[in-house]
Amino acid sequence: MSFFRSRWVDRPEHVRELEPTALPAGFRAAGVAAGIKPDGLDVGVLVSDSPETVSAARFTSSAVVGAPVIVSRGAALERLRAVVSSSGNANVADGQRGLDTARAAQATAAELLGVEPEQVGVAATGVIARELPRDRLLAGVATAAAALGPDASDLADAILTTDSGPKRACLEVTLPSGPVRLAAQAKGAGMMSPLFATLFCFVETDAALQPETLDLLTGVCVKRSFDRITVDGQLSTSDSVFCLAGGASGVAVAPESEDELRLGEALDALLRQMALDVVADGEGAGRVGRVVVRGDAGAVEPVARAVANSPLVKTALHGADPNFGRILQAAGQALGALDGTVAAGGAYLDLDIEGRRVVSGGAQVGLTEAELAELVEAVTGPEVDYELTIPGQGGETEVFFSDLSRDYVTLNAEYTT
Amino acid sequence: MSFFRSRWVDRPEHVRELEPTALPAGFRAAGVAAGIKPDGLDVGVLVSDSPETVSAARFTSSAVVGAPVIVSRGAALERLRAVVSSSGNANVADGQRGLDTARAAQATAAELLGVEPEQVGVAATGVIARELPRDRLLAGVATAAAALGPDASDLADAILTTDSGPKRACLEVTLPSGPVRLAAQAKGAGMMSPLFATLFCFVETDAALQPETLDLLTGVCVKRSFDRITVDGQLSTSDSVFCLAGGASGVAVAPESEDELRLGEALDALLRQMALDVVADGEGAGRVGRVVVRGDAGAVEPVARAVANSPLVKTALHGADPNFGRILQAAGQALGALDGTVAAGGAYLDLDIEGRRVVSGGAQVGLTEAELAELVEAVTGPEVDYELTIPGQGGETEVFFSDLSRDYVTLNAEYTT
Repeated sequence: MSFFRSRWVDRPEHVRELEPTALPAGFRAAGVAAGIKPDGLDVGVLVSDSPETVSAARFTSSAVVGAPVIVSRGAALERLRAVVSSSGNANVADGQRGLDTARAAQATAAELLGVEPEQVGVAATGVIARELPRDRLLAGVATAAAALGPDASDLADAILTTDSGPKRACLEVTLPSGPVRLAAQAKGAGMMSPLFATLFCFVETDAALQPETLDLLTGVCVKRSFDRITVDGQLSTSDSVFCLAGGASGVAVAPESEDELRLGEALDALLRQMALDVVADGEGAGRVGRVVVRGDAGAVEPVARAVANSPLVKTALHGADPNFGRILQAAGQALGALDGTVAAGGAYLDLDIEGRRVVSGGAQVGLTEAELAELVEAVTGPEVDYELTIPGQGGETEVFFSDLSRDYVTLNAEYTT
Repeated sequence: MSFFRSRWVDRPEHVRELEPTALPAGFRAAGVAAGIKPDGLDVGVLVSDSPETVSAARFTSSAVVGAPVIVSRGAALERLRAVVSSSGNANVADGQRGLDTARAAQATAAELLGVEPEQVGVAATGVIARELPRDRLLAGVATAAAALGPDASDLADAILTTDSGPKRACLEVTLPSGPVRLAAQAKGAGMMSPLFATLFCFVETDAALQPETLDLLTGVCVKRSFDRITVDGQLSTSDSVFCLAGGASGVAVAPESEDELRLGEALDALLRQMALDVVADGEGAGRVGRVVVRGDAGAVEPVARAVANSPLVKTALHGADPNFGRILQAAGQALGALDGTVAAGGAYLDLDIEGRRVVSGGAQVGLTEAELAELVEAVTGPEVDYELTIPGQGGETEVFFSDLSRDYVTLNAEYTT
């Protein structure tokens, strides 16, 4: 099966799928079991061998962030050479002790890999508000640094928490100037048992880019992928995306070139499919919805979020129920909270579900029994599409979301402390 | 058992509980079965006999509202004499046909009760985006108008949807100028099967008030009760509060008098307990949490809402898990979204659960095993209290919320269309 499974992602023509655990030339990775999780791999190291490596990063927008995010934000984010990751404990809300642990992991990796500490990003995911065992983490970093190889298989495993399986891909991208490789490993924003969601994505390419170009591509593609998904509307303390470009392919991607455009298309498709994989693997999730909202530029985003995060919409998606009343209700709530937009107070909505018009000008269209049966049949697939038009113009956005199931509640209501 | 069950509501000393289905002097009510619901009472009429009756009302802030809300907003909201209510179909998103039906109910009631159409409020709750059978509604109004009596029992039943039972109370309030009665009937914001939540509350008193005074008391008390609760964060298209004062007691409540203060205290306690009853009866709900947030005036409300609506916090409440990491996460998400407040970006939070400090200055306090066991025991009751301090000052708010259970998902995921 192709990595590009979703109908909402087009595989670019100039992209060929390689072994998903492969890495671009010049990168090495490892994942080891350090005892932070009860079992399984839990410490990972990724390194780019070239001193010319450039990098870009994006982090959670939460005001409460883990120590690894604080330490990473203070690193040299345009010239990172390595990323140290761990799973099982997110190192959040542990005060100075947590910061010291994150800095120790950074320093240990730097020394073992022969780079500066500020060239090492740090990422951790797992339970929060508990002490991360520093000794185990540092021992794991040392073991992983000694086990580096040209494959991301163990790294992709070592970042997982309650993901049902690893999320990784490697593409060969044919640019006008020559072929390059582009790979990524991610972990899900599925709800984490016993605590909550974190998203990681590590991206590697052997293309040579200027840091500004890589930052631009990373920013745009993250906005179109991981910024567009929700499992339960809960923002993690620890979301981290690291993107490293080592240049070993010898193919230079000049700013505003056709090469940049093609590489951007590949990165966009890669991250969008990764993001959809994360949604589809949300805790308890069985189906993925997409809501597209068009209309007032200031209103489309809150309306789309309100729909995608509504437990009523999400339970209806779970039950394969084309319940358009719930879409109207969620949109009405978001619109009612807006002042000063043409859309505020405007109930004149149009709604299509799976391409069928169900609400026009704010009123149900009056489906026949046959049409209703057809609509019900249309929403039984793994992906369901909702298109909503609100008053005003100039805006269009989309949000991908998972359904809400009993399993989600079970996973998150279990006694954990 | 006293009506004032919650520890978060104090029963005022000058209040005595009467038969909960009683009405103040000068009010009559009825509830009948009109076939809008598959079975049970579904059409109600409430009328105040005095031509001097004054009234106040509050409605949903959604931009998508039912036809009854549109018609009621256009009524004489300071001198309503009657309210017509129905359950089973909310008459939402049905275009001109729905508006015509709501106006027909208003006109029919007015004629039968001998008041002006604009003195009749209209309220409907139930499925949305479906045609409300007009003939059944009008026949029900006629039957109810012929069955009016001095008791709110059938009215309180006729507004229910998936509520587990009626919500009504009648109090004798001893004012300095003499005794008055104050009664209310409510239906829940519990999730409605097959569709979503609506809140109704009808309030009656035989005190004599100026319309401005009644409006002021209604506004303040609604803000401290129904505006402070959430089941699943979903705002209805149809929420309606109607408050009628008929004056039959002969006790006049002058503006800014001790009488007004005492009546306000009684109304406040009545509506807060009603609101807590609505939360406790939320679909699938088993427990109620309260989050109090203190700090920056612009930040306390979004932070409290983020905590109260977080599915992670709600599943933890369901599981009797004192999971303070989830409170920090929700607060961090809300604070991160704020610009220009002293609290934005501030992770220096203090958190108490059931009076026990668990986070100080953003870091866990390091509970001993014994302290943790005590905390776990403390969160097993029907009500759990969270107190959160964020940076800044000048603000304090509270939100009451229900837990999130598998039953909620089951109730809302069933096939309904």
